[in-house]
Amino acid sequence: MRTAAKTEAGTERLVTSFDPSAADAARARQAQLTKPPGSLGRLEELAEFMAGWQGTASPVIDRAQAIVFAGNHGIVAQGVNPFPAEVTALMVQNFRNKGAAINQICALADADLSVVEIALDRPTADFSQSAAMSAEEVTEAMRIGAEAMNDAAHVLVLGEMGIGNSTVAAVQAAAVFGGSGQDWVGPGTGADPAIIARKVAVVDAGLARHNGARTTHETLQAYGGREQAAICGAILRARELGIPVLLDGFICSAAASVLLRDDPQALDHCLIGHESAEPGHRRLIAAMGKRPVLALDMRLGEGSGAAIALMVLRAALACHNGMATFAEAGIGPA
Amino acid sequence: MRTAAKTEAGTERLVTSFDPSAADAARARQAQLTKPPGSLGRLEELAEFMAGWQGTASPVIDRAQAIVFAGNHGIVAQGVNPFPAEVTALMVQNFRNKGAAINQICALADADLSVVEIALDRPTADFSQSAAMSAEEVTEAMRIGAEAMNDAAHVLVLGEMGIGNSTVAAVQAAAVFGGSGQDWVGPGTGADPAIIARKVAVVDAGLARHNGARTTHETLQAYGGREQAAICGAILRARELGIPVLLDGFICSAAASVLLRDDPQALDHCLIGHESAEPGHRRLIAAMGKRPVLALDMRLGEGSGAAIALMVLRAALACHNGMATFAEAGIGPA
Repeated sequence: MRTAAKTEAGTERLVTSFDPSAADAARARQAQLTKPPGSLGRLEELAEFMAGWQGTASPVIDRAQAIVFAGNHGIVAQGVNPFPAEVTALMVQNFRNKGAAINQICALADADLSVVEIALDRPTADFSQSAAMSAEEVTEAMRIGAEAMNDAAHVLVLGEMGIGNSTVAAVQAAAVFGGSGQDWVGPGTGADPAIIARKVAVVDAGLARHNGARTTHETLQAYGGREQAAICGAILRARELGIPVLLDGFICSAAASVLLRDDPQALDHCLIGHESAEPGHRRLIAAMGKRPVLALDMRLGEGSGAAIALMVLRAALACHNGMATFAEAGIGPA
Repeated sequence: MRTAAKTEAGTERLVTSFDPSAADAARARQAQLTKPPGSLGRLEELAEFMAGWQGTASPVIDRAQAIVFAGNHGIVAQGVNPFPAEVTALMVQNFRNKGAAINQICALADADLSVVEIALDRPTADFSQSAAMSAEEVTEAMRIGAEAMNDAAHVLVLGEMGIGNSTVAAVQAAAVFGGSGQDWVGPGTGADPAIIARKVAVVDAGLARHNGARTTHETLQAYGGREQAAICGAILRARELGIPVLLDGFICSAAASVLLRDDPQALDHCLIGHESAEPGHRRLIAAMGKRPVLALDMRLGEGSGAAIALMVLRAALACHNGMATFAEAGIGPA
């Protein structure tokens, strides 16, 4: 059911609502399947979640899309990452050449992978010195994110690549949920203590500088980056269409959480696919009121953890749709 | 490398050893892949584990086998399960008709499913009253387990079905690791407090009665059951061949742990695929010195959790074998 919702920022947008009657019908089917009640645990919850968003008791994933958004960040000038910014473009090329982890996992999980790099030659500005992006740049990146979506997908896996963006994630998490750099900064791709100290300092400087940023759009302008704005745009578009989303780790989750500034329900259609080994992610997931599908100590980004979670989601629907009922199997109810 | 190992019980058997040089070679490859070091977390550990057991830096899973062993248990006469014993045979029929959860998950995870029921019309004896099985019955069930294996499989997923067997698992765990019924009994398929109290009582009675059982064989005679002995037989055969094993939940893990009575290294080639919601499983996994691949609140048995873990194992090897190295991608080392 698609309706116009007014956001806290006062703008209206179309949203598709969770259909509780479809979720109830899915739950009723689960109770008839040949297993002790509740014994499929998270799989049953996932099937009901998918049912509610697809508005049917028998949800399917015929088509899964994964998108990796990539961007560059002015904050890398502050020495917040052991890798140089050029690695973002090299990794994008690696995605196109099917050489990255996300390529292998998408092939296994049967997800169509889209790679969307946004103006890699124009890093955002250093958020510790000024706003990272103009209002127009935010709007444009959000549009790119929305348009990258395949509207016919049954589920969307989101990931990112951008040297320096674990620092952006830390400042976004602090902006949305409070706390300081110390609370949210972690090693990211492998920062040593000196780099971590610089990350903490720039996060605190950014929070002090952009302390007036309140809305989703203002927060994205303040801290960037382009891939974060694109993730927000894709999530909003998925919500219009009622397409469930699997978010990846710390960076992807922090970008998504910026949407909560306009609308506390903005991420109701999103699951956290994987709890990252990046320490801030556990805290962030709790603040978002979510529970991850998986925790495999991964901390790569690219959507890699969420793409593995897609396999669990597929298992949930395979059981939900394919299992015999007690009646079909000739087994009396317990 | 296959060698003859002397067990603590004094018998000799063939084992294939973990090849540390192959695991080292796999670790060296991981360090070259286009990702920050260690950022694939458990996936890297799993690739190295597979490399060591397959004796190659590039382990593969071209052929995965899942086996569900089924048996019946005299202990059900004590009212330890809300389902009647007839459900074991009905569920075996459901497996053959492809109607159970394990069928759907094996299809998705590309595992060949073997269903091996053992003398369902001859339940083991009630272990609270006498030995559950004769020495010959144990030997025969272990042989059936070993022969059910496809020697050409690259990985083996083990599961079970047997009304009443969470009580058998509790008594086995207590026999191997100490403690009483209270420490190891849980709700199983959905026992109410009265049933749980009966489970605790029969476990304590069994422990008192069979307190002299020391070896693997003696412990299987004492408590049964046929599917537990078959699981042990399959694990020993897999070890002869160097085939890694994914164990399912509480019942499968407890059966496997009986092998530790003869040889503390007997389960080195085994992973715990999934930590069950059955409360004793977490304690059991810790006692076994293992860490589960997944924890999805499942408590179904059948091998269902381990079969989902197979998908994670496949993802680990897909990344390990398919990713580009830094050199191939033209990215300098960090």
